[in-house]
Amino acid sequence: MKSLYLIKVGASVLDTPDIRDSFLQQFANLKSPKILVHGGGSIATELGKKMGIISQYENGRRVTDEATLDLVTMVYGGLINKQLVAKLQSLGCNALGLSGADANILPAQKRAISEIDYGWVGDIDIATLRTDWLAEQLSADICPVIAPLTHDREGHILNTNADSIAAALAISLSKHYAVQLLFGFEKAGVLRDIHDELSLINHLSYREFETMKANGSIYAGMIPKLENAFRCAAAGVQSVRIGKAEHIQLIIQQQEGTLIS
Amino acid sequence: MKSLYLIKVGASVLDTPDIRDSFLQQFANLKSPKILVHGGGSIATELGKKMGIISQYENGRRVTDEATLDLVTMVYGGLINKQLVAKLQSLGCNALGLSGADANILPAQKRAISEIDYGWVGDIDIATLRTDWLAEQLSADICPVIAPLTHDREGHILNTNADSIAAALAISLSKHYAVQLLFGFEKAGVLRDIHDELSLINHLSYREFETMKANGSIYAGMIPKLENAFRCAAAGVQSVRIGKAEHIQLIIQQQEGTLIS
Repeated sequence: MKSLYLIKVGASVLDTPDIRDSFLQQFANLKSPKILVHGGGSIATELGKKMGIISQYENGRRVTDEATLDLVTMVYGGLINKQLVAKLQSLGCNALGLSGADANILPAQKRAISEIDYGWVGDIDIATLRTDWLAEQLSADICPVIAPLTHDREGHILNTNADSIAAALAISLSKHYAVQLLFGFEKAGVLRDIHDELSLINHLSYREFETMKANGSIYAGMIPKLENAFRCAAAGVQSVRIGKAEHIQLIIQQQEGTLIS
Repeated sequence: MKSLYLIKVGASVLDTPDIRDSFLQQFANLKSPKILVHGGGSIATELGKKMGIISQYENGRRVTDEATLDLVTMVYGGLINKQLVAKLQSLGCNALGLSGADANILPAQKRAISEIDYGWVGDIDIATLRTDWLAEQLSADICPVIAPLTHDREGHILNTNADSIAAALAISLSKHYAVQLLFGFEKAGVLRDIHDELSLINHLSYREFETMKANGSIYAGMIPKLENAFRCAAAGVQSVRIGKAEHIQLIIQQQEGTLIS
């Protein structure tokens, strides 16, 4: 099967121009078909403040009321997505910015209200993903750049976690490609000691992950991030790595980052 | 040649939910391949006010400084575009939201600074348009929804007039299609007396336009709008009409609107 790079980056990469530009240059140079999935939560939060939109949080997760939905639709689907596309175009990469509503690539379900109402948040059912059209674009040497937005097929955009989108796409596209999934973030990878960048774990097994969770050396936001990564590895994604986005060349050459398996 | 409907709508259609929804329903029902080009200037202006971005104008044209560029990238490329796409998807139309940077469909030139510096504004050269990829999407039953943004191929988004984008696309796509171009706005068409909706001109010739311009019954923003429309008619676009967006069915049946030729 042909290789496909599927790379996810978040606000820590996007809001530092040097890091972003270094990442984009390396990404543009990748020869295989490739997809970029981006987040941008803290950029949306900052812009929201200017507009008087203060997001509410429940269990560390943003509640997407109508004003917040408009905000993330603007910032993720417009500002961040189109700036990335224009930059990639200038680097010779034929980028195509997409939300999950575009060409119906990511239909989703509005999250049911249980104890908490997260608002206009969407959960993806991998079985309903429409990756055929994406695969066609990839064959035509187009590089999809995907914003963390889905839709409910009833006319509403839904806010959706970028890690979850990357995972769902990686799993679904593994039917067509040997998917190399890479989660880019601000650290060199999973660290034995979060304060010591030299304590990088090259290869994290699920058993070790469970141990580190139990002893508290993996905590907070890293837990769902890694659960998500292990889910991909278990579901047939060829390789799943996590590391610094601006070092993707080194990570692909296995000289940096953490391999999840 | 196959018919293609190319319809442009502006803020007057988009910011009134009843009019917008009525238009979208009729647009979704059109059987032929179709493209929607949208503006949204006054929506951007309103949101800009909330963010403390007050646009400057020169000769009635917005000056696109960096803050305004970010604003229009968000509002045109994100909020308006993705809401339209989600709505059209719910109506069974496989919409695909695009800026001119996406798949490099609308490369443009930053407007040269003469007496006035309009800032990050792009002018399209029809000869450089990349409509082959758009034609492929149309063949696959995808409906492109195009925001009034282009790019300079050097990494920058450019703000571009939606009427100009619709005209450039109509002219360029006339190689592949019998293009039916329709400018939707708030009036029934070109009126002999602007205060009397019953004074509709069914068919406006260039000679009559010149006369009405000279005697002052066509003025202000209608002049460049109609110049643009006549340019399309002269350049091989099969039909060019102007009228109420929410009456597109009637306009297509030639029961309403003004035919420009």
